[in-house]
Amino acid sequence: MQKHTMRVPIIKINDNSTAYTNDTIIKEDRLNLYLNGSKIISTMCILKDQDSYAVGFLMSEGVIENIDDIRDIEISRNGLNVYINAIINDDNMSNLFHEKTLTSGCCVGVSANFEGKIIEKFLSQKIEFSIEQIKQSLYEFQKNTDLFSLTGCVHKAMLFCDDKIFTSEDIGRHNALDKALGKAKMARANTKEALLIVSGRLSMEMVIKCAMHDIPVVVSNAATTALGIKSAQNLGITLIGFARNGNLNIYTHSNRIKLNQKCN
Amino acid sequence: MQKHTMRVPIIKINDNSTAYTNDTIIKEDRLNLYLNGSKIISTMCILKDQDSYAVGFLMSEGVIENIDDIRDIEISRNGLNVYINAIINDDNMSNLFHEKTLTSGCCVGVSANFEGKIIEKFLSQKIEFSIEQIKQSLYEFQKNTDLFSLTGCVHKAMLFCDDKIFTSEDIGRHNALDKALGKAKMARANTKEALLIVSGRLSMEMVIKCAMHDIPVVVSNAATTALGIKSAQNLGITLIGFARNGNLNIYTHSNRIKLNQKCN
Repeated sequence: MQKHTMRVPIIKINDNSTAYTNDTIIKEDRLNLYLNGSKIISTMCILKDQDSYAVGFLMSEGVIENIDDIRDIEISRNGLNVYINAIINDDNMSNLFHEKTLTSGCCVGVSANFEGKIIEKFLSQKIEFSIEQIKQSLYEFQKNTDLFSLTGCVHKAMLFCDDKIFTSEDIGRHNALDKALGKAKMARANTKEALLIVSGRLSMEMVIKCAMHDIPVVVSNAATTALGIKSAQNLGITLIGFARNGNLNIYTHSNRIKLNQKCN
Repeated sequence: MQKHTMRVPIIKINDNSTAYTNDTIIKEDRLNLYLNGSKIISTMCILKDQDSYAVGFLMSEGVIENIDDIRDIEISRNGLNVYINAIINDDNMSNLFHEKTLTSGCCVGVSANFEGKIIEKFLSQKIEFSIEQIKQSLYEFQKNTDLFSLTGCVHKAMLFCDDKIFTSEDIGRHNALDKALGKAKMARANTKEALLIVSGRLSMEMVIKCAMHDIPVVVSNAATTALGIKSAQNLGITLIGFARNGNLNIYTHSNRIKLNQKCN
């Protein structure tokens, strides 16, 4: 067993079977980076090569100019903190945060800070979806992918609620989700009984965005992470991943999914 | 022609041919979000559904609680600014930036701010790679994907320089790249003659990270974007995308690639 992964119980559905089994998921964590005694940033990452990350990040951002300007690097025993001491000039230090720009795939604030206990809620909607409903929605999701078909370079989010569909594509999966959510809100749609399908991995912040809009069932054609699952478990969200080629992995709160067959 | 895409000239290489042709790429831009008269954030996105983005983002982040708290929304003529006026309480406003956390796939500082003209350089290395060298490197890249094979949930970066290979996997493509770059720097490797292969799209900030480390040739198995290409063009980087199944799309500075055949 790899220390950066863990096994979790899932219900695995494909065309011919429904089974209780296990899936291997990635473990991410919040790494804190300290430069000359001050915490400068946290990042969600795999706790591996933390020292290389610190060096690469600070040189990519123009904060450290030369590898020989680094006096020492230390990783804390629990792996969650990197302490780096280096010669830095003041101009370079200011490179770090000269404007708040969210690059594609980036997210800030509440949705990046669940562990900070900013949102405390538990979705208890008793709504149910059948496997057929989910597969039909996935079929809709895979149709009409205008920008993806043209460029192969966008994520998509599709929200099924009140017999309406709100859909959006963007280069970033957070942006695609925010756009679809915004469309639903502007149409005064009731997202509390919605099914959401997205492309791209279901990381913690994607799950938290859904919780902020009370969306009970979230499906992705890609993977989820340890913190994605933990957040969905604690927030009462039904999380389904690897929804492709007839497959569905149900990670949390499977009570909202009507199973066709007795589960083995 | 879709207004969110553009056509760019490329050299397209596959197993049997080498041709000058065109490729359709996505156009992203920096969208500025103003709340009650103050600029609160910029995001790299497709200039489509900007008002929905503003509503979805601010509600996802707990800044706006109720859709009826919004008084009006306006998008500037050039599409680059959204102005939103809304009733906000002070507590909610503070939700936006209570800690600097980079979520997976997120990036700040210099690499997010090329348009701000923070880095002005042009890589002029005359190093050349043959198609065979690139394909052999891609073969190495596709082998030994430990965490991806187990979880289907990581990005990878592999830097070939000085006859050494520096490799890293992480949930975020920026992190994977920073880690591989950090390993090379810590080993005092010469990245000025390096070939880099990454998974995930080559957005502007990925290209800028490479420029900060003077890496002349950058290859991805995925797509690139309009600003990715523009940055690579201006920074002197050879950019290759969709490197999979024997295909290579050369977007910029093809002089560093030795072509096997006369180009049609």
